[in-house]
Amino acid sequence: MQRLQQIIRDIPDFPKNGIIFKDITTLLADAEAYQRVIDLMGHRYIGQRIDVVVGIEARGFIMGSALAYKLNTGVVLVRKAGKLPHDTLRETYALEYGTDTLEIHRDAVKQGQRVLIADDILATGGTVEAVIRMIRRLQGTIVECAFLAELKELEGRRRITDVPVFSLLTL
Amino acid sequence: MQRLQQIIRDIPDFPKNGIIFKDITTLLADAEAYQRVIDLMGHRYIGQRIDVVVGIEARGFIMGSALAYKLNTGVVLVRKAGKLPHDTLRETYALEYGTDTLEIHRDAVKQGQRVLIADDILATGGTVEAVIRMIRRLQGTIVECAFLAELKELEGRRRITDVPVFSLLTL
Repeated sequence: MQRLQQIIRDIPDFPKNGIIFKDITTLLADAEAYQRVIDLMGHRYIGQRIDVVVGIEARGFIMGSALAYKLNTGVVLVRKAGKLPHDTLRETYALEYGTDTLEIHRDAVKQGQRVLIADDILATGGTVEAVIRMIRRLQGTIVECAFLAELKELEGRRRITDVPVFSLLTL
Repeated sequence: MQRLQQIIRDIPDFPKNGIIFKDITTLLADAEAYQRVIDLMGHRYIGQRIDVVVGIEARGFIMGSALAYKLNTGVVLVRKAGKLPHDTLRETYALEYGTDTLEIHRDAVKQGQRVLIADDILATGGTVEAVIRMIRRLQGTIVECAFLAELKELEGRRRITDVPVFSLLTL
């Protein structure tokens, strides 16, 4: 785990002054590290019934699609507003300044399906909270929310009280 | 292949009147179809040396990351302008109205690395052409551009003359 953590690159002052951005692209591009991440995250769910993995745009697509492949499921996309072409359900959530809206196709998760939600980084937790609300509106059962890493200082985990949360790394 | 093709959903008049949008989310969400797509695309490259798979934002991340996992490589992200935090190289390409810009980290592909470029749909080919130029500027060797499907009418394949192009499905 320590090696995985070390491959993540710190970018000072991105996207703005005073923020140290955790750049996971260096980890994703490293074959050994990337394989290890998907294997470790995937192994956690082997033997559990997962019907579908939900990936959150855009970097959650990476975790979501590779995990879905490993777990022999399909992958469902949660996208920014306006990108999904069929009948959607929306959830809006607060950002530091303003709000953002996510969408999912209404027929993408069926009642009773067991869903794994996947994203790269758990920060404040606002995004994944919106996704949890979506899956509940579609009457899916959330098995867990799985992240490559969580930013401990931001305490996103505290916000998600009634769904299990897993992160492979803690930054 | 016919079954795979049939699972892709036609959405009339999206994103605008007169266009029939090919919605692949129905295929991605279907476990059997999704597994089959990644297996078929991946098997094509087994036994070839691929050092890294490049996925193009956003739906190319899905093909790219699952293929990278299958092929035991890492995945490199080509993103819309402003999203990548480190030193990048840019390419701008023409859209129907206006232009768009993509970026890649300068250190993401090393000289001589063998690169597979992955995306979901080959339409006019403008996007992938820009990505090809990027990989060349980084002195990577492009093994192939792999798509889930190509839209035959738009003749994107004709535009990409000096790099092999593969698409699993033709729509």
